[in-house]
Amino acid sequence: MAEKKYVYSFKEATAAKLGKDILGGKGAGLAEMTKAGINIPPGFTVTTEACTLYYDSGKAIPDFVWDDIVAHIHQVEKDVNKEFGGKNPLLVSVRSGARQSMPGMMDTILNLGLNDETVKNIAIASGNERFAYDSFRRFILMYTNIAKGHPRTEMDKMLDQIKEENGYKLDTEVTTEQLKGLVAKYKEYYKNVFGEEFPTDPYVQLKEAVAAVFRSWDNPRANVYRQMNGIPYEWGTAVNVQTMVFGNMGEDCGTGVAFSRNPSTGEKKIYAEFLPNAQGEDVVAGVRTPLHIEELEARMPDVYKQFMETITSMEQYFRDMQDMEYTIEHGKLYFLQTRNGKRTARAALKIACDLVDEGLIDEKEACMRVEPKQLNDLLHPTFDAADLKKHTPIVTGLPASPGAGTGYIVFTAEEAKEKHDKGIKVILCRTETSPEDIIGMVNAEAIITSRGGMTSHAAVVARAMGRCCTAGCGGAHIDEEKRTVTINGKVYTDKDILSVNGNTGDVYEGSIKMIDADLGGDFGRMMDWADKYRRLKIRANCNTPLDADNAHKFGAEGIGLCRTERMFFAEDRILNMRSMILSDTLEQRVAALERIRPYQVDDFYKMYMSSPKDLVCIRLLDPPLHEFLPTIYETEKIAEIAEKLGVTVEKVKEKIISVEQANPMMGFRGVRLCVAYPEIYRMQASAIIQAALKASKDLGKDVEPEIMIPLCGELKEFKWAKDTVVKAVEEEMAKQGKKLKYHVGTMIEIPRACLQAGNIAKEAEFFSFGTNDLTQLTMGFSRDDSGQFLPNYYERKIYEFDPFQTVDQAGVGELVKIAVERGRATRPDITVGVCGETGGDPASIMFYDRVGLDYVSCSPFRVPLARLAAAQAAIAREREAAKK
Amino acid sequence: MAEKKYVYSFKEATAAKLGKDILGGKGAGLAEMTKAGINIPPGFTVTTEACTLYYDSGKAIPDFVWDDIVAHIHQVEKDVNKEFGGKNPLLVSVRSGARQSMPGMMDTILNLGLNDETVKNIAIASGNERFAYDSFRRFILMYTNIAKGHPRTEMDKMLDQIKEENGYKLDTEVTTEQLKGLVAKYKEYYKNVFGEEFPTDPYVQLKEAVAAVFRSWDNPRANVYRQMNGIPYEWGTAVNVQTMVFGNMGEDCGTGVAFSRNPSTGEKKIYAEFLPNAQGEDVVAGVRTPLHIEELEARMPDVYKQFMETITSMEQYFRDMQDMEYTIEHGKLYFLQTRNGKRTARAALKIACDLVDEGLIDEKEACMRVEPKQLNDLLHPTFDAADLKKHTPIVTGLPASPGAGTGYIVFTAEEAKEKHDKGIKVILCRTETSPEDIIGMVNAEAIITSRGGMTSHAAVVARAMGRCCTAGCGGAHIDEEKRTVTINGKVYTDKDILSVNGNTGDVYEGSIKMIDADLGGDFGRMMDWADKYRRLKIRANCNTPLDADNAHKFGAEGIGLCRTERMFFAEDRILNMRSMILSDTLEQRVAALERIRPYQVDDFYKMYMSSPKDLVCIRLLDPPLHEFLPTIYETEKIAEIAEKLGVTVEKVKEKIISVEQANPMMGFRGVRLCVAYPEIYRMQASAIIQAALKASKDLGKDVEPEIMIPLCGELKEFKWAKDTVVKAVEEEMAKQGKKLKYHVGTMIEIPRACLQAGNIAKEAEFFSFGTNDLTQLTMGFSRDDSGQFLPNYYERKIYEFDPFQTVDQAGVGELVKIAVERGRATRPDITVGVCGETGGDPASIMFYDRVGLDYVSCSPFRVPLARLAAAQAAIAREREAAKK
Repeated sequence: MAEKKYVYSFKEATAAKLGKDILGGKGAGLAEMTKAGINIPPGFTVTTEACTLYYDSGKAIPDFVWDDIVAHIHQVEKDVNKEFGGKNPLLVSVRSGARQSMPGMMDTILNLGLNDETVKNIAIASGNERFAYDSFRRFILMYTNIAKGHPRTEMDKMLDQIKEENGYKLDTEVTTEQLKGLVAKYKEYYKNVFGEEFPTDPYVQLKEAVAAVFRSWDNPRANVYRQMNGIPYEWGTAVNVQTMVFGNMGEDCGTGVAFSRNPSTGEKKIYAEFLPNAQGEDVVAGVRTPLHIEELEARMPDVYKQFMETITSMEQYFRDMQDMEYTIEHGKLYFLQTRNGKRTARAALKIACDLVDEGLIDEKEACMRVEPKQLNDLLHPTFDAADLKKHTPIVTGLPASPGAGTGYIVFTAEEAKEKHDKGIKVILCRTETSPEDIIGMVNAEAIITSRGGMTSHAAVVARAMGRCCTAGCGGAHIDEEKRTVTINGKVYTDKDILSVNGNTGDVYEGSIKMIDADLGGDFGRMMDWADKYRRLKIRANCNTPLDADNAHKFGAEGIGLCRTERMFFAEDRILNMRSMILSDTLEQRVAALERIRPYQVDDFYKMYMSSPKDLVCIRLLDPPLHEFLPTIYETEKIAEIAEKLGVTVEKVKEKIISVEQANPMMGFRGVRLCVAYPEIYRMQASAIIQAALKASKDLGKDVEPEIMIPLCGELKEFKWAKDTVVKAVEEEMAKQGKKLKYHVGTMIEIPRACLQAGNIAKEAEFFSFGTNDLTQLTMGFSRDDSGQFLPNYYERKIYEFDPFQTVDQAGVGELVKIAVERGRATRPDITVGVCGETGGDPASIMFYDRVGLDYVSCSPFRVPLARLAAAQAAIAREREAAKK
Repeated sequence: MAEKKYVYSFKEATAAKLGKDILGGKGAGLAEMTKAGINIPPGFTVTTEACTLYYDSGKAIPDFVWDDIVAHIHQVEKDVNKEFGGKNPLLVSVRSGARQSMPGMMDTILNLGLNDETVKNIAIASGNERFAYDSFRRFILMYTNIAKGHPRTEMDKMLDQIKEENGYKLDTEVTTEQLKGLVAKYKEYYKNVFGEEFPTDPYVQLKEAVAAVFRSWDNPRANVYRQMNGIPYEWGTAVNVQTMVFGNMGEDCGTGVAFSRNPSTGEKKIYAEFLPNAQGEDVVAGVRTPLHIEELEARMPDVYKQFMETITSMEQYFRDMQDMEYTIEHGKLYFLQTRNGKRTARAALKIACDLVDEGLIDEKEACMRVEPKQLNDLLHPTFDAADLKKHTPIVTGLPASPGAGTGYIVFTAEEAKEKHDKGIKVILCRTETSPEDIIGMVNAEAIITSRGGMTSHAAVVARAMGRCCTAGCGGAHIDEEKRTVTINGKVYTDKDILSVNGNTGDVYEGSIKMIDADLGGDFGRMMDWADKYRRLKIRANCNTPLDADNAHKFGAEGIGLCRTERMFFAEDRILNMRSMILSDTLEQRVAALERIRPYQVDDFYKMYMSSPKDLVCIRLLDPPLHEFLPTIYETEKIAEIAEKLGVTVEKVKEKIISVEQANPMMGFRGVRLCVAYPEIYRMQASAIIQAALKASKDLGKDVEPEIMIPLCGELKEFKWAKDTVVKAVEEEMAKQGKKLKYHVGTMIEIPRACLQAGNIAKEAEFFSFGTNDLTQLTMGFSRDDSGQFLPNYYERKIYEFDPFQTVDQAGVGELVKIAVERGRATRPDITVGVCGETGGDPASIMFYDRVGLDYVSCSPFRVPLARLAAAQAAIAREREAAKK
């Protein structure tokens, strides 16, 4: 093991071309800067592999790694002609640096190497005793807090006490003598807490600090950040040990950060700050306000010139916008790190497009430069920033669905529709929403609920239709009976206007100016490039013509999933559905279904008319029947249903009990409904064809229906349902004397279906993976219940991602692969897509591209994201192939 | 296609050696008899493949098959020197004959070839006009009823009317003239119903009859029989067309059936009946009572001698007990069919053992001769047949669990235990049982419930513990408050004795004499042979020491599954469990768990003491926590719990809601409990070791615990739980200063676990397939809900077996195979078994043997079945290998 190298000087690293995986982002940047001839303080990188080794060794740095670190310290001593713990003392910084930037999530220790002796030497060397003791004080504080993991509260109090006793406002007012006293107090405190002296040996300090940075990879905020950003725990962090340079040694010193372009707007202009006579920490801590970079030009014009040239050259070198840290020590400019800068969605697009125009990158590289998830920020109307500044939120809920909206308060779906029809904009306020509120949600600018989380009905439906929504807004007491919203004691009624920011969850009083989403310009160019390079087709999951409009606006190439049952919950329709369920005989059931038919024909007709160019895949009835009935305890609703349908309450109750499911997800639903009651699919299939024939006539071109049978697990089962569908379709076409081309396929959402895909493909013309159900069944936990235990799984690092958002490649993914292979072996031209939640997730899209799916289908508002992610997948695949 | 042969004369079939798969059982028997030189009426077999072809051709006999049938009729005409529809008319029977006997399930048509002309010729040829017209009448009736599928009611009425008008009691009293009139009436009726004349052309009759037999493969009673006996729909039936011989042409004629040994007892003595001057139909219909076979000896001693010799030779020839049909026509003996006779379990054992002793078969063949499922009949005490005859059932419920029991009525679990402890035998009577009744069920001779089906709690638990039970006995009104059982208006109390037959569901007044199960004798010999030839080990699923006693009595070689939670439901224990669930802090939870620990230690200790020689695999807590709490609507129970635990009702309600599961099967359970609350498994693991150490001491030998973690789907998850367990185990052993060898493994019950088996095996020392959950997840339907739709699946022939009883090889089976392969690839010596329901199913055991499992574990009462099924699997495998 000892033969492998775990420590590289920046120069060695440059030569070894190790890249971010081994060196971390910061280490790789330092290596690259060295290569580009930028002036950086000497130092070395302890690799990410050393981090893994540290954890594997039971949280200990193996001796051979430590020996190499010591050797590298000696090399640095030679390079800078200083001594670690000596007369002309070498001080170092110890910083984390993961593969992917995790700003502020992990730990950094500065000024390492100070002790009672070296502090004096620093004082002499720098000619600034106050600086030396302030640095020592800071070091003891950081070491205690970070390397030893002890809270800084008491030590902060000691400083505050001095300031208080002396009436100081700023840290800088504290005198050198007072700082010396503080250093003594800190050391005493350290001894009390740990029962040992503060370590004077710089090597002891260093070993502890390196270990602390490794440990910080596992701290709670790092774990949360990783989960949110999909960074695997296995990666680990590298550690960079670098000679300290000081920006706080006088007026010819300073520090700051610089972006090579504007990170908010993307404008091509260096965006930098300068803080004279200060250390980087002061900038980050916000203790002092930095000056505009022109101040540097005024004070040190030569340094300024070098600064600007270096930044420009670094951007040219890295061919991307750079985020750099710099320090000026006695008029000498050092860059401490550079990295590709974080940027807003808008800036990301502009920079990528500009870099193409500047000839620095090509279109494919431009596609790789934008994080697909960022695009979401650009698809919704937003508040005008200037006007927004004039308002303060009155209450904040969960940011359940992005966008912004302003309008009058309404309390019911009917009211929302009524006012909307009159041209009045409204905000729907409900304690929580139910399927019956959908019509209200469609007609509202925004939705506020006082209960429910990010996956509540309101949140899920709002996201799907792109409506702005703040959910679980507990501070807003919504009384639907009294028709009031009470916030902080103030009562709002339907005469009041509210504004909602779905990106933040904030609610404002009164109206705020809005800006529409701009899908042209840089956004349009990027989408064109994505379309040019992607292989996967992108469809959308749409349940209503409104969804379909959005989907086409965002560039969807078809509808991958239209759930027929979503159309069943409106009040006038659900009664017929209930009447169907309560039927005793086939005749009664058929009669009730015939009453539903006109609605279905109308719904489907509108879907076809709204997607004149594309395929529309309609899924036949899927949910268990009990979803259309109240629960046995809702006695009022039961009484109402009994009355409306002219049956006894007992009968309704009996039916409710008889359709109850112990595990609804695995219950009497999907194709099973067809096996028991083929008349349901018969009506639906016939309604689809009726609608398609009508639409074909009105469009002047033939519609080509795709009919999807959900939840199949066996060829004979699919065949039974397909035969039912085909018979109904053929009969309807014969009746109308006109033939249409149509396709019958199935959702693949049961593990058995994946294994039996070779058989099922004998009859099925297409497969569409339903990854929600497939994930539930493959992993054995339901989405509704897993919230009770998955947080523990994330905490223990058993699972790191939500498998309902990002496909679980090791389990679900293998079944998907098996199904694709077996399906294609039987029917080489079978169309295979995915229509579950993961169809709109970039990492999953990457996987689906690789396993050779034909398309992914996602919610309309994810279509742009999916287009870009598909392009990135194809480009990445191409690059890998080129490498081999 | 036409080149393939679908019709074989019995002689051709003999030469072609086609076997039952193609010829059906009856056809193969006829071919064999031909080979053995037995006198059988000439004819031919239309193969099972023709049946498949018939269905594939849209229920039509293809022309080339029909042409061959006609050709074979011509051959028969030559052989017997008669003409089909001619002067010396050939009449034939048309009978079904599947691969496996399905007695009475399919159709038979006799006397085919009769019409107005041939009937006269038959009258002349037989010299018996009455016989000729009676045959014709019967033929019209059968043809109308069977070939044309029309109910026989009206035609039966016509005969009844004649008998009534003339005061006849027997059919034989009807005169020739009256029969002629009846023939005319029947034909008229036929014309009215079908709008066409009754067919006179024998070939038209034949074609229709062959098709009718094919169709009868798909009739409802055949479908039900196949389901019950696991016969695949694909097999189809053959059709046998055979020259009619007549046993009803005078006093030198007769018919009957014969068994070469006694089918009830297995006694080696020909068991036959004789009905002079009769046709087989009369025997079957029970119109006339057959005579003892000695009657034949008396009447026709030569025929008798030939009869006895043939039967004996046929048994020698087939090396098994034969069930034969014979007819004597004018003193000439014909055998119409022979087949291996159906027999009782006891007879099956005796015959197999005797045949070995007689040198006709070897031990392996003997093992193949007994249907494993039959053994169940022999494991339970039964009523003394003679005494039983003196009693009449007073009410009948569902035969929920086999066996017999007699005792005083009790109404509660406590009462049952109290009386049982005093040596009083009791019958537990409950409207339905709950987990809290288990102690009562243990102490009762039998259980009667007035509600619930074959899968109700009472039924499932009773079967598992081998207690006799009749469930859903609606005719018994059980009033637990008033402490009465009312049956047919008569009121029974705890002063009354009832007797229960669990094999039939019958309940009797008073006590009936009992006979214990005999596990020695032939049973013992067969089990010894099975043990000698099987490869699979057989373990048992046992939750209590009583179960373990039964398991060892029946020959189990270890305990494959001990469910710890089954021990938690007793009243004193469940309160501590509830207290644990209601805990707010780790400390409270640990305290509650410590109160449960002594029970667990005691339980486990008893399990170890009851299985001194074998491995005991204990599964850690599996069910979701809500199972230990009442539902939110059980306000009384909630109040009781709140009071007992000293918390508010609100708090109990809150907890109930918080542990509620949308899909309990896929919810917060199994290893997930450990990931969230490791203290639970920590206590259980430590209790297991405490118990094992104590038992080791008392037994004077080291117990080797197997600890099983349920519901894992991922290596890291298993590792987390294993680490928790190992730490607790090591701590306990360190505390007691004694080391034991122990094993930690997992249940494989999630599809992802099968795919990840290679990884999981890095840490798991054994796998045990939980086929119940694995089937639910792989097929996507829960056992609790599938009852709502699986009957439709059976009806449509989408699934033919209950996958929870017999493993679904195409889906679940493939995952099992994958898991075994991957697990063994990582850890070649990993122990792999199955502990789900299918572990006790013969067809599944065959599969598990083939995929290389080490053992199956089933309920104690299935152990003998499993031992025999495992032997059959091994022998079948060996024979196949020898063939290749």
